[in-house]
Amino acid sequence: MSSDEIVRAVDYSRVFNQAIDRLHAEGRYRVFIDILRNKGMFPNARCFAGHNGPKPITVWCSNDYLAMGQHPKVIAAMEEALHDVGAGSGGTRNIGGNTHYHIDLESELADLHGKEGALLFTSGYVSNEATLATLAKVLPGCIIFSDELNHASMIAGIRNSGCEKRVFRHNDLEHLEELLAESDPQAPKLIAFESVYSMDADIAPIAEICDLADKYNALTYLDEVHAVGMYGARGGGISERDGVADRLNIIEGTLGKAFGVMGGYIAADRTIIDVIRSYAPGFIFTTSLSPVLVAGALASVRHLKASSEEREGQQAAAAQLKAMFRDAGLPVMDSTTHIVPLMVGDPVKAKRVSDILLAEYGVYVQPINFPTVPRGTERLRFTPGPAHDEAMMRELTDALVEIWGRLEMRRAA
Amino acid sequence: MSSDEIVRAVDYSRVFNQAIDRLHAEGRYRVFIDILRNKGMFPNARCFAGHNGPKPITVWCSNDYLAMGQHPKVIAAMEEALHDVGAGSGGTRNIGGNTHYHIDLESELADLHGKEGALLFTSGYVSNEATLATLAKVLPGCIIFSDELNHASMIAGIRNSGCEKRVFRHNDLEHLEELLAESDPQAPKLIAFESVYSMDADIAPIAEICDLADKYNALTYLDEVHAVGMYGARGGGISERDGVADRLNIIEGTLGKAFGVMGGYIAADRTIIDVIRSYAPGFIFTTSLSPVLVAGALASVRHLKASSEEREGQQAAAAQLKAMFRDAGLPVMDSTTHIVPLMVGDPVKAKRVSDILLAEYGVYVQPINFPTVPRGTERLRFTPGPAHDEAMMRELTDALVEIWGRLEMRRAA
Repeated sequence: MSSDEIVRAVDYSRVFNQAIDRLHAEGRYRVFIDILRNKGMFPNARCFAGHNGPKPITVWCSNDYLAMGQHPKVIAAMEEALHDVGAGSGGTRNIGGNTHYHIDLESELADLHGKEGALLFTSGYVSNEATLATLAKVLPGCIIFSDELNHASMIAGIRNSGCEKRVFRHNDLEHLEELLAESDPQAPKLIAFESVYSMDADIAPIAEICDLADKYNALTYLDEVHAVGMYGARGGGISERDGVADRLNIIEGTLGKAFGVMGGYIAADRTIIDVIRSYAPGFIFTTSLSPVLVAGALASVRHLKASSEEREGQQAAAAQLKAMFRDAGLPVMDSTTHIVPLMVGDPVKAKRVSDILLAEYGVYVQPINFPTVPRGTERLRFTPGPAHDEAMMRELTDALVEIWGRLEMRRAA
Repeated sequence: MSSDEIVRAVDYSRVFNQAIDRLHAEGRYRVFIDILRNKGMFPNARCFAGHNGPKPITVWCSNDYLAMGQHPKVIAAMEEALHDVGAGSGGTRNIGGNTHYHIDLESELADLHGKEGALLFTSGYVSNEATLATLAKVLPGCIIFSDELNHASMIAGIRNSGCEKRVFRHNDLEHLEELLAESDPQAPKLIAFESVYSMDADIAPIAEICDLADKYNALTYLDEVHAVGMYGARGGGISERDGVADRLNIIEGTLGKAFGVMGGYIAADRTIIDVIRSYAPGFIFTTSLSPVLVAGALASVRHLKASSEEREGQQAAAAQLKAMFRDAGLPVMDSTTHIVPLMVGDPVKAKRVSDILLAEYGVYVQPINFPTVPRGTERLRFTPGPAHDEAMMRELTDALVEIWGRLEMRRAA
């Protein structure tokens, strides 16, 4: 075969372009909106998408749920670290990148969840992926029982572990028990689930899942990324609120949502932390979190341990927005959490509503399409926080009612 | 089976403790050294390991190769971003976390490598893992040709892609060609390799690998994490120095080493960037880099594009330290790069030398043991930079000579 024939054999460009064309055809090609937040004026931001320079917008879809990314204590702590030690850590945790800030934050997080230890990762995604993949490798023959709505990072970790996986229907205890009962009693088992499901805005029956774990001798792994900082008297998450933290083997959290900074972590007993620290490639072979971020997260965690004001403000705002949406006949989904999803059920319409909100009303809420949610359940997802006031909510509700009418979309029953 | 019998069937604690015991038995259980760098006094730092409070040490193993993590421009840019927009991005790139800083930095990095586009990740590890795993999935039947010394993150990406993998001997063109020639000419192919191999301190024959890629119609993926900022007239890496950047399909780099901050990226043509952006779970489902980090990295990349002073200082320091080690009869490994490895060949001795250096001489260099390097090739790895002066090098060399004698270790031939 001549070199020319080989070149014709694979046309890489064509394959890549086809992959992109598929997204356009399904109406789910993503365009990132270009913004800068205005510190001190959260949820206000500048949007660079328009023609006449940056214009002010109100952000309704941030996961900086409590506006801690703008809290004076967090900013001050980061500024201090920046001037004390510099920008990056300069190495992996093992080689030059283990700073005193990292050690302090891990103690603080262990304490937050009532565990012996904690371990920092560069993100929540990496903490889920690395921990689940490593746990299952250290436990030969392990079977992982996974909620069907688990986050992509947990799915990646389970898949990358190569272990056997059984998916149970979302928050369905009977189905979980059925799967546990039919599995080899001798096999190591791990139940992996979330406390707050971010897109459906519901909460797992943690105590009941722990009962099943006890009965079938399974380990429990709980992702609390949409709960830490926001639930429990000290922000320890739903597991703290429900008084069940001690029944969970591993609690995973993020520093990038309610804590307002960036990074992820797990909290567990000393041995499990030591195993993950020693065996997880995603932990070992990566530059550690910048000490500037770690200092900010430390200030944020400490503040939210002591202050419930932000949590109460968020819950009040969420309740108020849900009530306004309901009163206006908008199809707000059932939510027992701080997240307020509005069902649209069509990717093109979801994007259209979002585009109009941004262009005409200066309101930023991202449409949530597949693969983040199943096809046919496309939605808008609002995250009101303590800084969203009643006037903003009124404006938002009125805008949505107008657009719903204009596009002849279905109202709530 | 009663509940008691089930409990006896799997003793999780025992399995986890055995995993830790194996590390102790092999002498490769890792203890992280607890330090804080003193900004403005790099490579100076404080060590918290001792009894009488923090004591000053000299860091010889940082990957903040050019001390850019302490550069006034970087610190100023981070401080400005911190006060302008706050701590974290508050969301994924698609949902609220795409700031103007991200867009600017991606343009700057695309320009640095002469590519149409670039894409930021939370770390170099994630950029390798996510890109390689996704590329191979988008190209059905893809075969990846991987250098045997490729970094753990590339290995993870290749494994997680589930595609066929052929490992070629380190920098061995004949072996690579042999593997290419015997593979199905119709199959998509990708050659994945690094420019500077961090632990062996040697450099890949990039042009010759590109020749083979042309001949066999393979894509090329080059990891330049230990070269960006440090080689080439503008810090574009070895591919810039050798004038071959345009022959590579994907160049991967880090913001956490020579650029001194944190994060990773790829640069490639528009279509490849769009494919990875749209399909890689490790990119899509994670909170984006903090704008504070992005602003710092932007300042760092821009500075090193214009200034060669840091690169020249680093090369001079590396040459001087190698000469001093050689003159003193220390077993310095061949190195054509800025990295200066000293062969020990035993994990316990490598750790012992490192412990003595820290305790008695205030010198911090981490022992490099398995799995970072193959067993039997354990070493110390020094990274002199523009801020390490002759007096520090003299002190270090004298200390090593004394310890080498004390422990009766082998000198160079």
